[in-house]
Amino acid sequence: MLNQRLHSFVGGDKGDWSVVAMTTVVGEPLAPVARVAMVAGEGDHSPPAGGWVLRGVTSNERYAAHREAMQMKSSQAPLGRPEATHGALIPIRKSAAWWALSQDERRELFEETSRHISIGLRYLPAIARRLHHCRDLATAEPFDFITLFDYSPDNAAAFDDLVADLRATAEWAYVDREVDLRLARAPS
Amino acid sequence: MLNQRLHSFVGGDKGDWSVVAMTTVVGEPLAPVARVAMVAGEGDHSPPAGGWVLRGVTSNERYAAHREAMQMKSSQAPLGRPEATHGALIPIRKSAAWWALSQDERRELFEETSRHISIGLRYLPAIARRLHHCRDLATAEPFDFITLFDYSPDNAAAFDDLVADLRATAEWAYVDREVDLRLARAPS
Repeated sequence: MLNQRLHSFVGGDKGDWSVVAMTTVVGEPLAPVARVAMVAGEGDHSPPAGGWVLRGVTSNERYAAHREAMQMKSSQAPLGRPEATHGALIPIRKSAAWWALSQDERRELFEETSRHISIGLRYLPAIARRLHHCRDLATAEPFDFITLFDYSPDNAAAFDDLVADLRATAEWAYVDREVDLRLARAPS
Repeated sequence: MLNQRLHSFVGGDKGDWSVVAMTTVVGEPLAPVARVAMVAGEGDHSPPAGGWVLRGVTSNERYAAHREAMQMKSSQAPLGRPEATHGALIPIRKSAAWWALSQDERRELFEETSRHISIGLRYLPAIARRLHHCRDLATAEPFDFITLFDYSPDNAAAFDDLVADLRATAEWAYVDREVDLRLARAPS
């Protein structure tokens, strides 16, 4: 029986999102694909020829304090709004140095130093997002996190600002692999 | 390829640990078994007839602050000391209410209120332990955490005190399933 919080992202030539751009920000690239299919709570998907499968589970908050979590909850929009025809899938991996830090050191870098939550809040509700954790799956995964975003075409420039803001932080110095896929809804 | 931090605990009639006692502390019991086999970084194990397989991954610290993590690191002993012929395997699950709390609320319950880290430190290095996380595996697991302990016969009473101290905390009010297996090394 599968974890109902499991999501699979299948890169190949099928799926409701077409890949309009794919950039390797740091580390190894991913094989280029034309489309991404997103599957919730389903069984194993083998990678299509020349493609890949990324998997992750949604989980509890790791860093947000109560007030921050409430602010996010009250401001955020769900994925899948009809006008949110643009999207992004951004898998990242963090270094061993990050994971060796204690919880308070990671929290301090994440928010007090890097303002990860505060930056994200500035783009709510325009940018919707869902974070998936991959590091504690039973299989060795190529990334630690996968974040899926969607937004209207009007907010494409704001999305560029959001990722640029985050990549300029001290937290991002611990990101040792990141690929940025920009998507457009393209029902098959 | 498997996560190298994956550990499987196979309850049946094989394995290097015999089960000398099994108590359901709260929630559903586990099927009674004679032995537990522990397997690191290996593939899928089907449950033996009438038995079970519990799986989890070791991972980064979730609550310990830097000073606490350093104290644990400098005081703790590794599993598998020759004199540590007694053991315990304690899988627990926490309620949805726990997981809905923000990080700072969970930390406060865990340490400032319940002294989980401080209690544990009192029993180092006598009691060795390893914590495994199950909640974010791709499969739906019956528990959120599995902790494996080992200690010398001299420290069996201290181990009883440790678990009694933890079960009396406010944190433990969020534990909705817990089974306590006491083990003795019994090479097959």
